[in-house]
Amino acid sequence: MKKPSLPVMIVTGIILALSALVIALLVFISNQPKPMRGVEPLVVIAAMEPDSAQWGLNFPNQYSTLLKTETNNTRTAFGGSEPVDKLAVDPMLKTLFAGYGFSKAYDEDRGHMNALTDVRNTPRVNETTPATCYSCKSSDNPKLWDEMGMAAYDKMSFADMTSKITEPIGCANCHDAATMRLVVTNPALDEALKAQGKDWRTFTRQEMRTVVCANCHVEYYFAGEGKYLTFPWEKGTTAEAMMAYYDEIQFKDWEHPQSKTAMIKMQHPDYELFTADSTHYKAGVACADCHMPYTRDGAAKFSSHDVKSPLLMASQSCGTCHTDVDYVVERVAAIQKQVNDTMLATERAIVDAIGAIETASKAAGVNTALLDEARQMHREAQMRWDLIAAENSMGFHNPEEALRILATATDLARQAQLKAVQAGLGSSQASQP
Amino acid sequence: MKKPSLPVMIVTGIILALSALVIALLVFISNQPKPMRGVEPLVVIAAMEPDSAQWGLNFPNQYSTLLKTETNNTRTAFGGSEPVDKLAVDPMLKTLFAGYGFSKAYDEDRGHMNALTDVRNTPRVNETTPATCYSCKSSDNPKLWDEMGMAAYDKMSFADMTSKITEPIGCANCHDAATMRLVVTNPALDEALKAQGKDWRTFTRQEMRTVVCANCHVEYYFAGEGKYLTFPWEKGTTAEAMMAYYDEIQFKDWEHPQSKTAMIKMQHPDYELFTADSTHYKAGVACADCHMPYTRDGAAKFSSHDVKSPLLMASQSCGTCHTDVDYVVERVAAIQKQVNDTMLATERAIVDAIGAIETASKAAGVNTALLDEARQMHREAQMRWDLIAAENSMGFHNPEEALRILATATDLARQAQLKAVQAGLGSSQASQP
Repeated sequence: MKKPSLPVMIVTGIILALSALVIALLVFISNQPKPMRGVEPLVVIAAMEPDSAQWGLNFPNQYSTLLKTETNNTRTAFGGSEPVDKLAVDPMLKTLFAGYGFSKAYDEDRGHMNALTDVRNTPRVNETTPATCYSCKSSDNPKLWDEMGMAAYDKMSFADMTSKITEPIGCANCHDAATMRLVVTNPALDEALKAQGKDWRTFTRQEMRTVVCANCHVEYYFAGEGKYLTFPWEKGTTAEAMMAYYDEIQFKDWEHPQSKTAMIKMQHPDYELFTADSTHYKAGVACADCHMPYTRDGAAKFSSHDVKSPLLMASQSCGTCHTDVDYVVERVAAIQKQVNDTMLATERAIVDAIGAIETASKAAGVNTALLDEARQMHREAQMRWDLIAAENSMGFHNPEEALRILATATDLARQAQLKAVQAGLGSSQASQP
Repeated sequence: MKKPSLPVMIVTGIILALSALVIALLVFISNQPKPMRGVEPLVVIAAMEPDSAQWGLNFPNQYSTLLKTETNNTRTAFGGSEPVDKLAVDPMLKTLFAGYGFSKAYDEDRGHMNALTDVRNTPRVNETTPATCYSCKSSDNPKLWDEMGMAAYDKMSFADMTSKITEPIGCANCHDAATMRLVVTNPALDEALKAQGKDWRTFTRQEMRTVVCANCHVEYYFAGEGKYLTFPWEKGTTAEAMMAYYDEIQFKDWEHPQSKTAMIKMQHPDYELFTADSTHYKAGVACADCHMPYTRDGAAKFSSHDVKSPLLMASQSCGTCHTDVDYVVERVAAIQKQVNDTMLATERAIVDAIGAIETASKAAGVNTALLDEARQMHREAQMRWDLIAAENSMGFHNPEEALRILATATDLARQAQLKAVQAGLGSSQASQP
């Protein structure tokens, strides 16, 4: 065997030395801690994990504040999370919701962790209630929707679904387990946004801090025999656009037993009212900015998951932007009183309309065409009133829009009352102004 | 004569020396320039000097900007100072003001310097018009009120007063000539404040920067045969308080020829709406902060006297407090549209009520008690509507209060319409809801 020449030996030596260096460098790099956005997760969370306690192992601050929503239930001037009996506070509601579950029981809703308990205890749920009523009440839903599809889920009865659901609202309702990103988990929201040509996957994080609340805090209805969860947003999300949608499909939640009006029950359209060009929304403020303000615990900064009225934590919620917290809290009180006063006037007008329609319907020779016009006006008035009444801010999410909607509702209700009186006079009087 | 002793001579010498020193000091001080708040006045302004040009010699910046109000007349979305014919823009006004001067001519008011020209040219003024109508139109008034007393002034006719008045609105309407302090010059305002237990002489300068506007920008009426200028503030300055006041004294500006309703014409209640706990008022903002923003010309800083819509100078007016001027201007536009939409709905309701009352009044066997109730509701509805319609901000001076008032006005107008229809049916149907 020929002895290698000197230059070959030198080159070989350099190659060996470089290789050793590269290997040493790789070993060094692999021993370095990986770059992390936060702390190293203690446990791996399965996709759509229903159990918030599991997520809580990695995110103890968020989890411990979420737990507070179970017991930390406090009343504010017009809302909060104490289970106040609204029917006792305002007996007009019994007339407005006559023939519907909300005339039997209508308590102020409590914090997120009580959602499951409360929906199971309300007398509004009976043997005909569909599983769809669980849609906003449990962190079991994202996994169930993924496994079953929402159509199959909604076709089940509430009673049959009960065994599959153990968790109240939790982490999986808004977060992706792998990345903790905010995600739309409710297929109905995904579809409603798509119908408007919007894809939430392109939204900014700040936009998502509002949109994830629309997983639940929206107006919706159960479409068709399959009780398919649907948001009435095809024409837009204003009062007028949703009313036009319901009229076009001739939808009703129930028929009012006194006026025989085909009624719409509004759910909790916080998202629609807030995003109808409210001053805070237009200024770029998200739901979470006020309802889940950033909080410190020692060195940790996190978004409080004790979701509640900003009035209960005004210095954190309002104080981030407003230096004069006492002043803004006083403003909220003044505005909510104005909206509440106006809302009660609307209720009186609708109650009067219901009475007039009922009286007219019993009159001999009633003008049925005119009476139907009165019913349509009753339908439209009460839908608008309920948008503001069912919404959870006594108008503060969008004060001017709330008052505009209520003014329109009162106008419609009083016109319904007049048309009913005229209908009762029979066809001969129908042309009177 | 005894020669003075040495001690006496020494004492006398000290006294003389001290006296000389004191005299020298006094001469020195008297030759020093006096401490001045601003520049040395070029001319001495007589108390209540009507001619603003005289004041302008000392205050050229304030005067030259005041002069701009004569020609600098620009339209905004819902106001401004271009003499737009409101009756052409909104023909419903002709029905609402039927039988009253405002159905003959109702132009948008122009800037301060045009006040005298415009009041002399409007067809609303005729041979029965009292001198009281000059009260808000001229800087001759403070001197005339001082010399004649307001009661004698108001007893004169408009025509007879004309020769005494040559100046439009000017410096003397708001300033004391000797000190340039802001002062209440209109005796009616002084009396109205006193009736509420308030003394403007104790107000802060910032308070005065709102109160002096109330010399004119208020609701008022002419009391009794003497046409004595009076503000209806005895029970307060809210819509409800002023309505209660007018009802108590059974005042009417005119009778509506179609409905025979005793009507109230609201004037320009900017002050009342703004101070009804609006957000800007509660935050300590004065009228002058937005309508007369501080301006620079070279080294001089002064309050612009080109009083006009802040929308025409948003960077100075809004920009002093708001960093995001484009955003706030957009908010004003959104809110004014909401108020305008709601206001037009109120107008439609009142026009319907007028028609219904007129029809019912011609019906055989009309229930007159019910018809009078309808008239009272028409009166109350239109007074509230006009508070917002005559007010110069399309609700922006106090958005929530404006919308609350309009919602109430619509409710009352529709109830008036219904009561009229019921009245037309005669007594037998009066108990129907």
